[in-house]
Amino acid sequence: MTDWTQQTDAARKWFENLRDRICTEFEAIEREAGSEASFRYDSWSRKEEGNSDPGGGTRGLMKGKVFEKVGVNVSTVRGNFAPEFAGTINGASAESPGFTATGISLVAHMANPHVPAVHMNTRFLTTGKAWFGGGADLNPPIPYEEDTEQFHARFRAACSAHNPTYYERFRKWADDYFYIPHRSVHRGVGGIFYDHLECEDEAAFERNLAYTKDVGEAFLDVFPSLVRRRMETEFTPEDKQTQLEWRGRYAEFNLVYDRGTLFGLKTGGNIDAILMSLPPEAVWS
Amino acid sequence: MTDWTQQTDAARKWFENLRDRICTEFEAIEREAGSEASFRYDSWSRKEEGNSDPGGGTRGLMKGKVFEKVGVNVSTVRGNFAPEFAGTINGASAESPGFTATGISLVAHMANPHVPAVHMNTRFLTTGKAWFGGGADLNPPIPYEEDTEQFHARFRAACSAHNPTYYERFRKWADDYFYIPHRSVHRGVGGIFYDHLECEDEAAFERNLAYTKDVGEAFLDVFPSLVRRRMETEFTPEDKQTQLEWRGRYAEFNLVYDRGTLFGLKTGGNIDAILMSLPPEAVWS
Repeated sequence: MTDWTQQTDAARKWFENLRDRICTEFEAIEREAGSEASFRYDSWSRKEEGNSDPGGGTRGLMKGKVFEKVGVNVSTVRGNFAPEFAGTINGASAESPGFTATGISLVAHMANPHVPAVHMNTRFLTTGKAWFGGGADLNPPIPYEEDTEQFHARFRAACSAHNPTYYERFRKWADDYFYIPHRSVHRGVGGIFYDHLECEDEAAFERNLAYTKDVGEAFLDVFPSLVRRRMETEFTPEDKQTQLEWRGRYAEFNLVYDRGTLFGLKTGGNIDAILMSLPPEAVWS
Repeated sequence: MTDWTQQTDAARKWFENLRDRICTEFEAIEREAGSEASFRYDSWSRKEEGNSDPGGGTRGLMKGKVFEKVGVNVSTVRGNFAPEFAGTINGASAESPGFTATGISLVAHMANPHVPAVHMNTRFLTTGKAWFGGGADLNPPIPYEEDTEQFHARFRAACSAHNPTYYERFRKWADDYFYIPHRSVHRGVGGIFYDHLECEDEAAFERNLAYTKDVGEAFLDVFPSLVRRRMETEFTPEDKQTQLEWRGRYAEFNLVYDRGTLFGLKTGGNIDAILMSLPPEAVWS
């Protein structure tokens, strides 16, 4: 079995670098809106019985004028899955429950209902196998076709530079994943979702890391431009109500279906970091 | 196998009678507060492929001055469980997936944070077995010991009239059930919870129906008196914020853990009726 320590470290460094650049950019947007809001960072340590080095993470949170609530987590954890959970994870089992995971996850809920909310997450996991996963999806309470097309076009470009099949596969995967079966609706206008992008060897790791970096670059390129386009748009109390109801759907998806939330709850993650994705305010009619 | 058609009908009639009396009482409270709010009723029909009589229900909803949002559902449904779900239900299996269910469920979210929210639900189910279940729990954003004691004392009295062990067992069951593991907190100050109160024969049905009726009577007796005690209490914006954050916990519990919600989603229930329990407004900090 390959020792992935060095690769996990390289992936972690990338995620931290991406986090720093994203947070700087989001704070710059707050300045343009005349706000002094900035990210506050909290570190947390994971606990696992009998594990002296279970890892942890840093949660960045900003509540601003444009970003009503945005969280950016980077976490790097290692240990053993609980036996009943291990069997559900790629390359792990009750007999071989060891894992490492490093990743970045970001959810932004915006003050102005004309500005789309967004989610982005990329990660590198090792068990008996090693793989990347991730994605991003756009969640406009009030959708604009122009924004949806620009978001998809930017991720299509990032995908196409690496593999001609990625965009279509990962776009469809996002459509299947970001879906609320009990309401028969998608939670937003999609994006990309990928998982089990397997690293059979170090060369595959390098290829997959390069792709994952480009997914992060695409996000950093396209999302701020959508925010700047819509952040000054006037909105009515009805627009805000539409946003709050839409956020109810978002909370339902994350609490009932989201695998990342489940993974966090089952592996003793930090509750505030896991549930950071929940909207600052939501209504149910 | 006993034919429980007649008993199911008797239970349904009781649940409808209780619903009518509760709604009348809650509307009377609105009048005392100077509001004209009243319940609106929507009927829904269940759908199940190949089932010409799958049942349905009626959802009553009131948005008033005292009751910010209160829903009271009575539903009576019958059919076959999905094969993968049947195995998880008492007395059912993939080979024998037939069931009937009738019940009342009520959730009230109150405008004034000094007034406790409340949940009450009782039901009668048949598969290869037949049983009652139900309970009630009190959810004060700002708890008063006096209210908690009165609520428990009234259910203790209802339980003790039927079986000396019921209150302690069902109080403890509520403590175990209405718990949010990922936050290590209870969702409120408890109450009672019971399930699989088995009806081996018609005499047992009558005994268990009589107990279930007394649970409903206890609710109708005690909750309105708590509402009237607190509904005029002045509250601050901080009190309201406490309530909204507390409602975030409530939404988490219902979407991640609640078995009634899961049962509804898995048996093709009405989404608006199932998710009626969600708060009108919630915040996550």
